Amino acid sequence: MGLHEDMLLLGDRGVAASRALARLSARKKNAILLGMADEIESRREALKASNFRDLEAAKASGMSGALLDRLTLTDSRINGMAKGLRDVSGLKDPIGSVISRWIRPNGLEIVKTRVPIGVIAIIYEARPNVTADAAGLCFKTANAVILRGGKESLQSNLAIVEALQAGGRKKGLPENAIQLVTTTDRDAVKELVQLEGRVDLAIPRGGEGLIRAVVEQARVPVIKHYKGVCHTYVDASADLDMALRICENAKCQRPGVCNAMETLLVHEAIAGQFLPRLAARLGGELKVELRGDAASRAIIPSMKPATEEDWSAEYLDMILAVRVVSSTKAAIDHISKYGSNHSDAIIANAPEAQREFTQDVNSAAVYVNASTRFTDGGEFGMGAEIGISTDKLHARGPMGLEELTTYKYVISGDGQIRE
Amino acid sequence: MGLHEDMLLLGDRGVAASRALARLSARKKNAILLGMADEIESRREALKASNFRDLEAAKASGMSGALLDRLTLTDSRINGMAKGLRDVSGLKDPIGSVISRWIRPNGLEIVKTRVPIGVIAIIYEARPNVTADAAGLCFKTANAVILRGGKESLQSNLAIVEALQAGGRKKGLPENAIQLVTTTDRDAVKELVQLEGRVDLAIPRGGEGLIRAVVEQARVPVIKHYKGVCHTYVDASADLDMALRICENAKCQRPGVCNAMETLLVHEAIAGQFLPRLAARLGGELKVELRGDAASRAIIPSMKPATEEDWSAEYLDMILAVRVVSSTKAAIDHISKYGSNHSDAIIANAPEAQREFTQDVNSAAVYVNASTRFTDGGEFGMGAEIGISTDKLHARGPMGLEELTTYKYVISGDGQIRE
Repeated sequence: MGLHEDMLLLGDRGVAASRALARLSARKKNAILLGMADEIESRREALKASNFRDLEAAKASGMSGALLDRLTLTDSRINGMAKGLRDVSGLKDPIGSVISRWIRPNGLEIVKTRVPIGVIAIIYEARPNVTADAAGLCFKTANAVILRGGKESLQSNLAIVEALQAGGRKKGLPENAIQLVTTTDRDAVKELVQLEGRVDLAIPRGGEGLIRAVVEQARVPVIKHYKGVCHTYVDASADLDMALRICENAKCQRPGVCNAMETLLVHEAIAGQFLPRLAARLGGELKVELRGDAASRAIIPSMKPATEEDWSAEYLDMILAVRVVSSTKAAIDHISKYGSNHSDAIIANAPEAQREFTQDVNSAAVYVNASTRFTDGGEFGMGAEIGISTDKLHARGPMGLEELTTYKYVISGDGQIRE
Repeated sequence: MGLHEDMLLLGDRGVAASRALARLSARKKNAILLGMADEIESRREALKASNFRDLEAAKASGMSGALLDRLTLTDSRINGMAKGLRDVSGLKDPIGSVISRWIRPNGLEIVKTRVPIGVIAIIYEARPNVTADAAGLCFKTANAVILRGGKESLQSNLAIVEALQAGGRKKGLPENAIQLVTTTDRDAVKELVQLEGRVDLAIPRGGEGLIRAVVEQARVPVIKHYKGVCHTYVDASADLDMALRICENAKCQRPGVCNAMETLLVHEAIAGQFLPRLAARLGGELKVELRGDAASRAIIPSMKPATEEDWSAEYLDMILAVRVVSSTKAAIDHISKYGSNHSDAIIANAPEAQREFTQDVNSAAVYVNASTRFTDGGEFGMGAEIGISTDKLHARGPMGLEELTTYKYVISGDGQIRE
């Protein structure tokens, strides 16, 4: 069989599995998730042995430190996978819940009910723990999942998927509910995301290159996360102690993630007071490299000059672009032009500035007097997330269980016909 | 300037307009819609004159009767456009409404708020009334719209868009809120649906060829309606009088639309009673062409034999495929295999058959004891619809105003940072 036929078969099996999954009760699904978690733990040594083969091959091919680290299944990551599955089993099941219900003048009752999406393809890089996390969330929402991880992690992924299937089967996991693409052929992704009628949604997780490739090739809907160019705007009315504390948190607490601040905008009225404190704390003590526009450098001459590229950079590092702006509107204009619609914050006490900012900044998460670092499924109280969407359709911001569902209308009558 | 630059410019103008639109109050938007409606009516003769030029050209190029009819702007259609705009102005404005609100243990307040999608491209065929309908719905939801109608209706569309803009401007319509693609270059659609970052959503409306072309070319999200292969399943427990009345309505009341029945499934236990009545009423008096499987033809030998193609045909005509099935499950299997996930009905009194059908049929609208013809924004009580989605993501079934919106999270704190 060729690649196309292989992928069609995965799709057909996924469709069949999704019908069986939709019939499982919440209780049964939770028992299956616990069975998967147990099996992940009891196969700990086998998982590490498979992972070791991936690591050896990766080292031989010259993979670098950070990537090797992501590829490694430590005891702590194996515990994390099992805990993640148990946590998901404890979350409220959105499937079957009634979103709304109304009765029409002709007596028809319309019930809008939450149902699974169907078959979801997850395309990701060489992070084997994503395999268990994504499979758990898709399963909890009764979606069949087709996983395609990075080729460097294939042995690890095979071992994880076998554990999930074996542990789940003991508790009644339907066949083919969790499938892994085992070919390393690059064209498999293209085939997968063109399976209209079989694959209902593709979620790419990884670097911008991977995501762009999926979007260009896809004929099925894609929900994606391009990048997080997050701003903090310190207004003239801000509490500067609070502003400094939030800036430090947003930039430094974990600089390598998408909800970390990349650009600071400061109102000109308080720039003379605020920037020296920022330069001392972030630039000095915390060793953040500051890159400023001319107005900020007039206050802090030691800053490097920022270039046009800096305004749209997602550094994911201890670097911060700094710009002085003349008004809340100027801050909003900057964010509209250079931002990525992810997470942006205003630090202000003036209600009119807060209102203007939250109204006009069109990002998934708009903050008032808080750190952008809170854009996260767990921090939002969703319990878990499959990613953070920078799209506007279907799901925006942190995607939890509800975002992995759709709805259908069930309409009940007693013989109504249309006049 | 080339086509690519022309489309980029439309996109940039749309983005700028969408920011102005998001700031309009509900009251102001409603006044603008009424202004548009007035102007459509007061330009009645000019609209008909422009439409006459389209019609003359279409006749000269040999356009056929049904298409000519769709292209024609009659007084009744002009009244319909004005009435549609006034109706939309009277609907509840979803923008700014709070979807949900909660407070986290750390004191952060999270408000999930309904906001416009941004810029929407509508691609459609030579039906000029779509121009006013789509523009009105997109405007009410504060979305900038880029309209691309069939080239045969260009003069009509130009006149309609000018009327909408002129009538709206008197009441404060922002510039470029409603734009029309005026080039007839076929590649304009491709350019439009690849404007990532400028166009947020494309909605193709028309035949399957148009829709497939948009899906293949698009890099922006698409919500589409492929086809409606709607089923009615008459269970062994059905009230046969009700079943006959519903079948007649679903097939004959308006056979040319997507929510009309195309295939009838009949339980074998009552086929011998029901099919003769169906053949007499639909096949006889109403002149529906019946195409049956072997089991139905054993009961009604005058039916034409159905072929494999009939099971997935969207006739949009007075033709009905008929099949005898042995169980509710067999009916569901047939629908899963051949249906289009649009609208499907069961006629049954047995609760277990109703439950099995509504649980396992995964269509946007699943009916119990009612005609599939009710799948419609107006009939659902949405007030208006921009189309009926056969997709599963973002919007399913009739798409009203809410389905033309997205959400953002506004998070308010008093200095919260992430630990």
